[in-house]
Amino acid sequence: MDASPCVKLKRQPQGVPVADDFEIGEAEVASTGVECRSLYISLDPYLRGRLSGRHLTGLISPGDPMTSETVLEVVESGHGFVAGDIVRGHAPWQHRMRLPPESVHPVDRQIRPASLALGVVGMPGLTAFAGVHRLLQPSSGETLLVSAAAGPVGATVAQLGRIAGAHVIGMAGSDEKCRWLREVAKLDAVIHYKREDLRESLDCHCPEGIDMYFDNVGGDVLQAAMERLALGARVALCGLMSQYNTDEPPAGPNPGLIIRARAIVRGLVVYDHEALRPEMEVSIQREIENGHLAYKEDISEGLETAPEAFCRLMRGDNFGKALVKVV
Amino acid sequence: MDASPCVKLKRQPQGVPVADDFEIGEAEVASTGVECRSLYISLDPYLRGRLSGRHLTGLISPGDPMTSETVLEVVESGHGFVAGDIVRGHAPWQHRMRLPPESVHPVDRQIRPASLALGVVGMPGLTAFAGVHRLLQPSSGETLLVSAAAGPVGATVAQLGRIAGAHVIGMAGSDEKCRWLREVAKLDAVIHYKREDLRESLDCHCPEGIDMYFDNVGGDVLQAAMERLALGARVALCGLMSQYNTDEPPAGPNPGLIIRARAIVRGLVVYDHEALRPEMEVSIQREIENGHLAYKEDISEGLETAPEAFCRLMRGDNFGKALVKVV
Repeated sequence: MDASPCVKLKRQPQGVPVADDFEIGEAEVASTGVECRSLYISLDPYLRGRLSGRHLTGLISPGDPMTSETVLEVVESGHGFVAGDIVRGHAPWQHRMRLPPESVHPVDRQIRPASLALGVVGMPGLTAFAGVHRLLQPSSGETLLVSAAAGPVGATVAQLGRIAGAHVIGMAGSDEKCRWLREVAKLDAVIHYKREDLRESLDCHCPEGIDMYFDNVGGDVLQAAMERLALGARVALCGLMSQYNTDEPPAGPNPGLIIRARAIVRGLVVYDHEALRPEMEVSIQREIENGHLAYKEDISEGLETAPEAFCRLMRGDNFGKALVKVV
Repeated sequence: MDASPCVKLKRQPQGVPVADDFEIGEAEVASTGVECRSLYISLDPYLRGRLSGRHLTGLISPGDPMTSETVLEVVESGHGFVAGDIVRGHAPWQHRMRLPPESVHPVDRQIRPASLALGVVGMPGLTAFAGVHRLLQPSSGETLLVSAAAGPVGATVAQLGRIAGAHVIGMAGSDEKCRWLREVAKLDAVIHYKREDLRESLDCHCPEGIDMYFDNVGGDVLQAAMERLALGARVALCGLMSQYNTDEPPAGPNPGLIIRARAIVRGLVVYDHEALRPEMEVSIQREIENGHLAYKEDISEGLETAPEAFCRLMRGDNFGKALVKVV
């Protein structure tokens, strides 16, 4: 059998995952499909839900290979691909594999480094682009609040909002992240939610209330934002970082807060917005080239570092889009 | 001084209001304005919030007259009105008064009995009309769930939904209300939420999930509905009956339920939709005349019965639009 090293789930994590919840093993390389080698593996908080069977993309059980969005290089021409092509697809955390042709998508040659196809011009970029342009639809001068603003989705939302003329306030949990948001991403205001009194800071930076809130975290940060919605506010609910590591989903804000603001609260799932991808790729790459949009990557080297890199992400200790560079 | 009997708040209610929280007194009749006598006073759950200073229309303090939407007869011509005109306005619970002309609105002569201007073709009707046609926008065959479905808002929402071709499930809390919803309002299904296991009944009547939910109550009924939202669901949050009598607003459903369904959840406040009133009046009267839309009134006779009638409403013991017929 043709086999290749891969990362498997060893046991279901309890609370915050630890590296020992995973193991390095070998997996068979299928005999048909597009032969590829992994270049970059995307680590994403939503994966935590899959380890408990709580995510809409299904369960990963002990013994199963870990899978996620991956950028790969085609090593053997065929199925319409040429050796050397850079592609992306949902794939196991594995060195070499053959993937069903329908699950392999070319990565535009303009996207370099190719890792960006997993970040600012990949799924996180698409999430942000759909959130800003389809759900929030900022008008110039409106206040946009973003949680987990130094993450790949949050940072892109915040900067797309700034580009659209919104007054953008980002929340993050370390001095380094806050400095980057202020100095590099050029947000209008930044709240260090661990050091500052969150509600006081929100009152200070959003004296007229919050017109738009993009939420990546849920929990008390969502509660504090909902308490301060301006009339006609729009809220995009996208992530639940505060509860991915918990077993029971906690309660949310009282519905009276939505009624009072006549707010529109919407759930955002990126899979619904795939049709926006070409427009997003062009638009975000242009903003990067023009120096209007910054991004940050947090790259861990070697397939064997993937478990600990994922655990670091789930502890909130990463800074930038969490990736594993496989080779 | 020219004075007239009126109902005042005696003390701030604790929990469910009791008749002793109110008192009958006298109030001065202003020397200028449109001279009117009260015909019907509207009793509404939102008033409970005003007694605790929690409603967006402001606080009623001990010693203040109770006020609400009222239908009145003009007793002296002037200010563009003629004696005998039927009008509506926000007014004290009082026999006779003079009202500022700008707060007095004629009631269309087609609306008879005039009490309907406080119910199915009044504020509750406008709430329902805006909720269905602006927020929920039913498509034929979609599932619409309505809480407090025998109340004046809920019953109108449910029937407008049925007229639009939705499959309508109403929830109510007494045999009599459930029978009326089934036999007179002709809903597709009715759940007696006090007698039945709510979640089992919802699973039975909404096997494919809930496409639209119109919420008048909040609390656990909202939670159970949100757990069952279909993809692309719309939720109109309109009332909070479960918490009007409480001091601290309880938590709401977890935001993950909104994300999972990619739902659109909106707060509905009727004051935003005043421009729809003429269209609503024509449309709802036509449906009543055609026998497609039923309504129910719960009328208490005499100004002095208003406190107990309001308390009955806040205990959920009314059946139909709660009104006081003043004379």
